[in-house]
Amino acid sequence: MQSYEQSLQQTREFLLDHDDYLVVSHVQPDGDAVSSTLAVGWLLSCLGKKYTMINEGPIPKRMEYLWHASEIVNMSEQELSGQYSHIICVDCADFERVGRTQRYFAEGAKILNIDHHPTNNGYGTVNLIKPDAAATAEILFDLLKVIGVEWNLEIATAIYTGLLTDTGGFRYSNTSPKVMATVSELLSLGVNGPELAENLLEEMTLPQVKVLNRALSTLQLSPEGHIAWVHVTPQDMIDCAAENEDLEGIVNYPRNIRGVEVGILFKVIHENAVKVSLRSAGKVDVAALAQTFGGGGHTRAAGAKVEAPLEQVIPLILEEVRRHL
Amino acid sequence: MQSYEQSLQQTREFLLDHDDYLVVSHVQPDGDAVSSTLAVGWLLSCLGKKYTMINEGPIPKRMEYLWHASEIVNMSEQELSGQYSHIICVDCADFERVGRTQRYFAEGAKILNIDHHPTNNGYGTVNLIKPDAAATAEILFDLLKVIGVEWNLEIATAIYTGLLTDTGGFRYSNTSPKVMATVSELLSLGVNGPELAENLLEEMTLPQVKVLNRALSTLQLSPEGHIAWVHVTPQDMIDCAAENEDLEGIVNYPRNIRGVEVGILFKVIHENAVKVSLRSAGKVDVAALAQTFGGGGHTRAAGAKVEAPLEQVIPLILEEVRRHL
Ligand SMILES: [Mn+2]
Ligand SMILES: [Mn+2]
Repeated sequence: MQSYEQSLQQTREFLLDHDDYLVVSHVQPDGDAVSSTLAVGWLLSCLGKKYTMINEGPIPKRMEYLWHASEIVNMSEQELSGQYSHIICVDCADFERVGRTQRYFAEGAKILNIDHHPTNNGYGTVNLIKPDAAATAEILFDLLKVIGVEWNLEIATAIYTGLLTDTGGFRYSNTSPKVMATVSELLSLGVNGPELAENLLEEMTLPQVKVLNRALSTLQLSPEGHIAWVHVTPQDMIDCAAENEDLEGIVNYPRNIRGVEVGILFKVIHENAVKVSLRSAGKVDVAALAQTFGGGGHTRAAGAKVEAPLEQVIPLILEEVRRHL
Repeated sequence: MQSYEQSLQQTREFLLDHDDYLVVSHVQPDGDAVSSTLAVGWLLSCLGKKYTMINEGPIPKRMEYLWHASEIVNMSEQELSGQYSHIICVDCADFERVGRTQRYFAEGAKILNIDHHPTNNGYGTVNLIKPDAAATAEILFDLLKVIGVEWNLEIATAIYTGLLTDTGGFRYSNTSPKVMATVSELLSLGVNGPELAENLLEEMTLPQVKVLNRALSTLQLSPEGHIAWVHVTPQDMIDCAAENEDLEGIVNYPRNIRGVEVGILFKVIHENAVKVSLRSAGKVDVAALAQTFGGGGHTRAAGAKVEAPLEQVIPLILEEVRRHL
């Protein structure tokens, strides 16, 4: 197993030795995916290389302010003409995550795989993987330093964005001393941290606030206060003009109530199907719990789809949670 | 004007030269006030000094886990016997902020004033004031280093708590490169940042969630979407078993809606008085606006009390906001 420093050098050579790269990230790109794509683009432009940035889907509106974000080709709007022999994949835990961008990979194309997911299986010709990095953006910060490219405010802002979003605003357990030291440097370069936090983490859409209100109106707690749950119906979604993404974060409200061990959002899909989102304060492994219902996830955040009406799903799930408490 | 380094040395001497100190912070202590009180206590215990920590009111429940927090005398529960000749005030912008603890200050007592508020007028015999520090805890981090006391996890946790709470989870504009570099060091000492963020910033009480729900049910937006407001009535407070502190943060919901410049919470005190809390996205100086009604605050967070019924206060305030937009 080669060291991180060796991988950084190999990556440097891969970037210096070729021309005309295709830079891709995963489907439904998040802050880290977009930031990392742009950081690689910046690096290549500093090296005087040709490159194209592409993603299967659109860039989230909140990230459009980032340096050259509009240059990332959105496949649902635009096609590329040729194929590429040198691909740079960022923030993709496995090869399938690149989605339909694969069609632009030439037969036998060489792949540089830059990622921080511990499950990354090293599918690249060159692999720059640091499983204890909080974000792919953190690895790119190191790479930009090793190659010695010029820093500017725009690219520092992109790297900050990746770190901010992948650490949940510096609140997840991946927020290492290294993350904070990096952030300190980025702030010194003039990054407007408060504005980014506001736009990326705090801003809500009107439908989001409305559907949160609907959900909170249904709040219930178990008698001993260890389980709290809310639900949202298709009618709520219509009345609030809410999309699925507007439900993000709602499950944290029941979960964040003092004393609650498991918070649940029941999202009625139709009269015979409910999507169940589970959040744990730590004691209960909700991934295991979700698996009982054919779902999955992480120990503290998991979900499952249950084919039954809401009135049946609620007691079913509550009983299972109680068994795990 | 002496330098910060000179003030640190003067502070060091004040702490070495005497014995038996009274350590006080401001009424209604926040995270920084409690953390700073405890950090001074730790420092004095390391120096082998006698000291008593006191506050006019109780320590918020969320901070009871901090090192020796239970030793901070709560004046509503306990009286002290004597008076003290050497007082250490932390996080108190002016002398009055110490509240009723003054009764334990001996005639002609010497005061060490450690604070980060730019408005601090230097009321101490010795003043250690750093207006660009994000928190008094940041100053204490420097002081602990200058004096060279031993670090332990408990006191690192206290300092982290002060920084976390006074920067709103590293989101306010006072989140400097220095704050993040300090935080990086504290995490290296083993501080559990995620757990602190969860307990101090994310946890909600049941009354808090309930009263948030009541408030959001009243959400209204101006036609062009630049002003959003909610209100809370005395009946809501009773129904939700809510205290005033449970209203904290509610005004951010209208304020955080995309496109909104000013968010407002109207809290009905009684049928002829309303407390108005204003939050600005940046364009409007709500401090100036609040002053029009005899209130005050910061440019982005201000408030006023208006002696009129809610139906009159709402249009009055909205008109004034429109004039400022
Ligand atoms: Mn990532
Ligand atoms: Mn403070």
